Parts: sequence; C-alpha cells; structure tokens
Amino acid sequence: MMIDKDATIEITAFDWVPDFARGYVRDLRPRWACEELGLGYRERLISAVRRPEWYFGEQPWGQVPHLRDGDIHLFESGATLVHLAERAGRLLPAGGQGRADVLSWLFAAFNSVEPLLMELGTVTLFAAGEAWAEARKPGLLTAIGQKLDRLEAALGERDWIAGDFSIADIAMVSALRGGGPELLAGHARLAAYRDRGTARPAFQAALAAQLAALDIGEAA
Amino acid sequence: MMIDKDATIEITAFDWVPDFARGYVRDLRPRWACEELGLGYRERLISAVRRPEWYFGEQPWGQVPHLRDGDIHLFESGATLVHLAERAGRLLPAGGQGRADVLSWLFAAFNSVEPLLMELGTVTLFAAGEAWAEARKPGLLTAIGQKLDRLEAALGERDWIAGDFSIADIAMVSALRGGGPELLAGHARLAAYRDRGTARPAFQAALAAQLAALDIGEAA
Repeated sequence: MMIDKDATIEITAFDWVPDFARGYVRDLRPRWACEELGLGYRERLISAVRRPEWYFGEQPWGQVPHLRDGDIHLFESGATLVHLAERAGRLLPAGGQGRADVLSWLFAAFNSVEPLLMELGTVTLFAAGEAWAEARKPGLLTAIGQKLDRLEAALGERDWIAGDFSIADIAMVSALRGGGPELLAGHARLAAYRDRGTARPAFQAALAAQLAALDIGEAA
Repeated sequence: MMIDKDATIEITAFDWVPDFARGYVRDLRPRWACEELGLGYRERLISAVRRPEWYFGEQPWGQVPHLRDGDIHLFESGATLVHLAERAGRLLPAGGQGRADVLSWLFAAFNSVEPLLMELGTVTLFAAGEAWAEARKPGLLTAIGQKLDRLEAALGERDWIAGDFSIADIAMVSALRGGGPELLAGHARLAAYRDRGTARPAFQAALAAQLAALDIGEAA
C-alpha cells in the first residue's frame, strides 16, 4: 500500500460514507493509479456529513477526490488520473495512436458510459421507490444495455480497452463497477474485463485503503 | 473558416439532424478548437438517419465527432479537444498549475456538469410529456440549480474558467449551451460567461460551418 504520511502527493477522501457507497467513492481512482504507478501518497480525510465550507474553495462541488502534488492541486477524478500518469510517465502514452486511444476511452468512460450509470444510481438508490423512478427504469436499462453492447463489441477479445493497461481502464472499470454487481449479468466479456481490473493487486490495495479510511469517521 | 479539403485533420459530422439539434451537435467542439488554433480541417459528412454500420468500428457509439489527424484517429469530443490543443501547443498549458486547472475544469464540464444537462435533455426533449419525465423535472432542476450556484461561485469575476481562454471553456460553454437558452436565467454571471464564449469569432465560424454541413443531407 502506497500510503506514506510524508509523501508530496495528497489525496482528499471522506472518513465515513453510508454502507452503499463504501468501496465506491471516487478517491478510489487516484488511489488505484498511485498503487499502479508506485507513487506514495498521504491522505487528508474530511467529513462527508459535516462537509467543511472551506473545502468548496478547493473542490467546487464539495466532492472527493481532491489531489495535491507539491504546489499543484487538481480536482475531478479524470484530471487526477491524467496528472498522475503524466507525472510517472506510464499508463498514458506520450503521443501517437497509443495516446489517442487512451484519451478516447478515458473520455468515453467519463462522458459516454458513466453518465447513464449515474442516472441509474439516482433511479435505483437516491429516488428508489418513487413512482417516476420506477417508470424511468425500463427505458434507462434499455439505453444502458445498448451502450454496453457497443462497449463489449469494441472491447472484443482484448484484455484492456486501449492497448496495454492504462488510466482508461481505471476509469472504465470504475464506471462499470458503479452500475452495481448485476449490471453486467448479460455481458460476460465486460464482466470478465471488470473482474480482471478489480483482481489487480493495485486495485485491491486501493480498495483496502479506502475502506480503512472510511472506518475512521463517525456516522451521520 | 478553417475548412480546407486538403487538410490533414478530418472531422466527421452529420449532414442533417432534426431542428432542435442544429447548432448543438458535438462536432461543434473540435470545429471550435480548430478555429481558435488556426488549424485547417476537412469534413467527412455521414448520415445520422442511415448511420453506416462500418462507422461503429471507428466511433463505438455511432456518434460524432470522430477526428482523424494524419495516421491518428480519436473519438469523444473531450479527447479531440486535448489532441488539438496539444498538437498546436495552445489552449492547454504544458505543465504546472495552468495545466492542472484546465484538466480539472475540462473533466468537470464532461463529468460533473454535462451529465445533469444530458438528463435534462432526456426529460425535456426525448421523453417530453411522459408522466415520469414531468415528475422527475423539479428535482432535476433543483440539482442543476445547485450545481450552477457552485459553478458561478467558482467562476467568480473571472472571464474564463481556468485562467486564459482554454479548451476547458470550449467544453464548459458547450455543456452550458446544451441546457437550452433558459437554463442560466437565474445565473447572470454564468449567462455572461456563456455569451462571452459564443461571441468569439472562432465559435461563430464553427457554428456557421456546422449549420452549412447540416443543410447538405436529407431529412429522415
């Protein structure tokens, strides 16, 4: 595990979240990247329940992660992935078709796949049981199924979405996990892809670190 | 206008869309970037109505834009913006806090702002009049309003979202436009920001080019 209290990289994360969010909070993404890249990082834990107002000055939505790297600071998990990969010179090729593929799939994860799954989260978690959410669910699941069909076709028989393992896989596997365990029941190759990602020692170390941090704070 | 049939950069766009989408199709984003950067590009127009199956091999969702630059090809408008800025060496600083800010706001546009506005598009356009969509609308508008409050606070009195004008502004202004003309009625500074973006000659040239292309094809 790359946690090191003297590291120049700092990841801001929550110290407690409700059960359904444990293991799915977005600081998992830069934690995973740090583990893959061998970059030590220190944690700054804040309360999600009593979210400090000053934090909105660093992260405009009050969400995590926020990343500090010496004098530089970033927010949005996608931006943290690009920064960490460029800093380490790995998981995002410096040019050519390799870089083009990783960038394409990185934004695909954040803008074409994850938004539908965020809407699914609204429907199945935050608004669960509301009449409109029940009525929305079938059409949304159809749209998601069509997207997953196309994603599975694009993945083909490859292990990773954009050449060698890259930050596009960190983003895409994370997005797919966010749809819940049943999401990929009808897409065996995508399920195997997700499971290849989460079986990586770096993912497991990042997950353990997030879960440990979430035991520190107090419930709402 | 930077359209040049002999250019090495090729942008794939549609030759017709329904009226509500005219001026809002996502090829507008790399067109805008090319105009800002002084990069010539050629067009490859395809039919959105009879979308060729081979195109899914280049763009997994069958959407536009797809960008070719010599031997390199990309998809997802966010990826095309990064590629064009890095190619030209402008609108995305090469390092430091400048790069960190642009990357943070670029992903904020694509993953924190635009997904809510895509859901709004579903509710107000594609599912307009359906009972669930009417029931969803108030809560969604509340969530969007809170996001816009935070975005407006982060923008403050600055002209652009991340230092000098950058690809983060192309992404954010484009996302905000996608919410429809009334979206920013209660957010005067964001409305002024959007209008500063769309008043740029490069945006106007890109818009004119998209609209001209959309007159070429035949309606469904």
